[in-house]
Amino acid sequence: MQRLAPKNAFYAQSGGVTAVINASACGLIETARKYPGRIGKVYAGRNGILGALTEDMIDTSKESRTAISGLRYTPGGAFGSARYKLAGLDKNRAQYERLIEVFRAHDIGYFFYNGGNDSMDTAHKVSEIGAELDYPIICVGVPKTVDNDLPVTDCCPGFGSAAKYIAVSTREAALDVASMARTSTKVFVLEVMGRHAGWLAAAGGLASGDSGMTGGTAPQVILFPEITFDKPKFLAKVKKTVDKDGYCVVVVSEGVRDAEGKFLAEAGTRDAFGHAQLGGVGPIVAQMTQEAFGYKFHWAVADYLQRAARHIASKVDVDQAYAVGKAAVLLALQQKNAVMPVIVRKSSKPYRWTIGEAPLAAVANKEKKVPRNFITADGFGITAACRQYLTPLITGEDYPPYKAGVPAYASLKGKSVARRLKNKFIA
Amino acid sequence: MQRLAPKNAFYAQSGGVTAVINASACGLIETARKYPGRIGKVYAGRNGILGALTEDMIDTSKESRTAISGLRYTPGGAFGSARYKLAGLDKNRAQYERLIEVFRAHDIGYFFYNGGNDSMDTAHKVSEIGAELDYPIICVGVPKTVDNDLPVTDCCPGFGSAAKYIAVSTREAALDVASMARTSTKVFVLEVMGRHAGWLAAAGGLASGDSGMTGGTAPQVILFPEITFDKPKFLAKVKKTVDKDGYCVVVVSEGVRDAEGKFLAEAGTRDAFGHAQLGGVGPIVAQMTQEAFGYKFHWAVADYLQRAARHIASKVDVDQAYAVGKAAVLLALQQKNAVMPVIVRKSSKPYRWTIGEAPLAAVANKEKKVPRNFITADGFGITAACRQYLTPLITGEDYPPYKAGVPAYASLKGKSVARRLKNKFIA
Repeated sequence: MQRLAPKNAFYAQSGGVTAVINASACGLIETARKYPGRIGKVYAGRNGILGALTEDMIDTSKESRTAISGLRYTPGGAFGSARYKLAGLDKNRAQYERLIEVFRAHDIGYFFYNGGNDSMDTAHKVSEIGAELDYPIICVGVPKTVDNDLPVTDCCPGFGSAAKYIAVSTREAALDVASMARTSTKVFVLEVMGRHAGWLAAAGGLASGDSGMTGGTAPQVILFPEITFDKPKFLAKVKKTVDKDGYCVVVVSEGVRDAEGKFLAEAGTRDAFGHAQLGGVGPIVAQMTQEAFGYKFHWAVADYLQRAARHIASKVDVDQAYAVGKAAVLLALQQKNAVMPVIVRKSSKPYRWTIGEAPLAAVANKEKKVPRNFITADGFGITAACRQYLTPLITGEDYPPYKAGVPAYASLKGKSVARRLKNKFIA
Repeated sequence: MQRLAPKNAFYAQSGGVTAVINASACGLIETARKYPGRIGKVYAGRNGILGALTEDMIDTSKESRTAISGLRYTPGGAFGSARYKLAGLDKNRAQYERLIEVFRAHDIGYFFYNGGNDSMDTAHKVSEIGAELDYPIICVGVPKTVDNDLPVTDCCPGFGSAAKYIAVSTREAALDVASMARTSTKVFVLEVMGRHAGWLAAAGGLASGDSGMTGGTAPQVILFPEITFDKPKFLAKVKKTVDKDGYCVVVVSEGVRDAEGKFLAEAGTRDAFGHAQLGGVGPIVAQMTQEAFGYKFHWAVADYLQRAARHIASKVDVDQAYAVGKAAVLLALQQKNAVMPVIVRKSSKPYRWTIGEAPLAAVANKEKKVPRNFITADGFGITAACRQYLTPLITGEDYPPYKAGVPAYASLKGKSVARRLKNKFIA
């Protein structure tokens, strides 16, 4: 009896990348390599799902063991990611059929999609059309998002490291402004990501500690997207803080909105000279405090730095990112379809976690926001419950190797899989 | 024969703080403690020189050995710094006389001033008026500035760590934008400090490496204050880079000026030294590329994060910061007046350095800019000579201890020295 060659796998990274999405790729590829009789080659989409649509795939079997293991400490998306949302099945059936055509041409039996809630929706749809077109394909999602907004899973790989970056940066900036406040800067504002959910802003709250410690009360103000921005209340809080502590550190989410539901950053605010602000809610709220009280201010916008900061990654986050990549393969080998590995918290003190699973349908297109009981009554801080939830996620350091002062991040050869289809797909 | 009690010392931090200015304080205090027969107590100005003017001093002898040794890994200014420039002797003689009055009241025979070129000017003037008023005071400067713009010394403590932060952040952001560029962000701009000298912008260039490495050509554009901003040339360079690499990373100094000598981003406000407060050139140049070519862009403004980032400090920088603090005490014990310890480079490969000394007069109010031969012919990059100069300064990691995911930075008790003067000084 002739044994069939094992099916190949297709892996793609999707949406905004993180400091640890490659750690998931590492867990996935290293695990797949342990089952050569069950999984053939792992092909990775060059630039995410576009790589499948355009039949532009990287053959990871051509990468050395060292290169793949280096993904564990390398930020960014090693294969390229994409902000490319497939339309609904009814709207653009051709895209899904194309995916199946490419999968069929390359004997791909497993589809691993590493992304957030949009991507889990796509993976779910691919599993549906696979069944419909009678092409057996196992679709497993791999969770990833710095926004930490996926439901079911206790947290999302990528979040813990960005959260740690923000907590560390906030503590450091607080020590700086505390030193300068007597004669100079009184207000420091750090703008962080999180368009709809304030998890990253909440992480800034982990910078605070013992009030007897220098900078220990900072950040004194956190502005969450979950709390409607109230300018008079905000200004009163800043004033009270400066009067008491001498300075005020503000962590503001890019997603903060006013009472009309408009993003502050889009409010068309103009600076003192009538110039339109070029974006950035950070400078806008900083400027407000100067207009009201004459405070000298400084502001920082972390932007990509927060999600790329592998140099200060959370060890827990790196471990979990690796674990979901590994678990995705193990689920696939159990023939589980349309599922995603999730992180299950067993206890907070001491922190214990394990890997569970969730149907993609339960995860797709849903957002988990910061619950009200994680935010203090005045809307400007985090509660003990929030701290208990967040602290384990930023715990532990996992430093990359360095060469000549900078991290020696891994690079792949990125050798292409030979094309087998004649027709091209214009994405 | 009765032996005179040893004179006390006064130490103050000045200007913008750094990730390692406390390491200098640590070296200074630990060394002074080794000579109890020669130096009495070390008093630190609360909020810098203001602490002397207002007779508000911290008695460092009340701090434990552990607390002082913790300063080595703690960013910010542990005693408070000040942006407070003493006027010329002719203009405000009363300020200098007040300093001498306080020094006399507390039997202070040594004045250590930890700052940049403005502060070295002040220390120099204090040494002059001491002589004039027949009050013997040994004045020793301790170099500090992230701007790296002091003359004579090969480099300035504080710079290496900020430079490392910028090099690491640029490399990480480059990996991020390289992943996203196919369908999303094409241009990423990181704004860094450096009002007149482009040393920190140059440090971004250390992120680049082997062109075969992912993100290895980034940053492809550096905008220096030393090079007049030429918008058409800048846009052409960005376009060419995006066409070739798919994306472009820009590191821009806050001090970039146009052909008329105007800062591209002048916030309008001025600090105590009369310098314009800058910030916001990052979004301005990012926006230019969108207007010209429709590129999606992201930008980050590191601001205080770059100079407070002790978590990613350069080991060489920490060692040098400690060494200049230690050397300041040793110079004072040799009765050297109006001098500053400097860092002398013995060789670049392998990197070897030692401590020398310079007269304050040679350092005061002078700025060292990035020489033209450190900048590539097109004005957008660093040369091999620049890389050879910079690389040793960011080499080595020196991680602080962590607790619950954030650095466990040291805190002082900050116990005040009892006042001896009746009159108050309104600064």
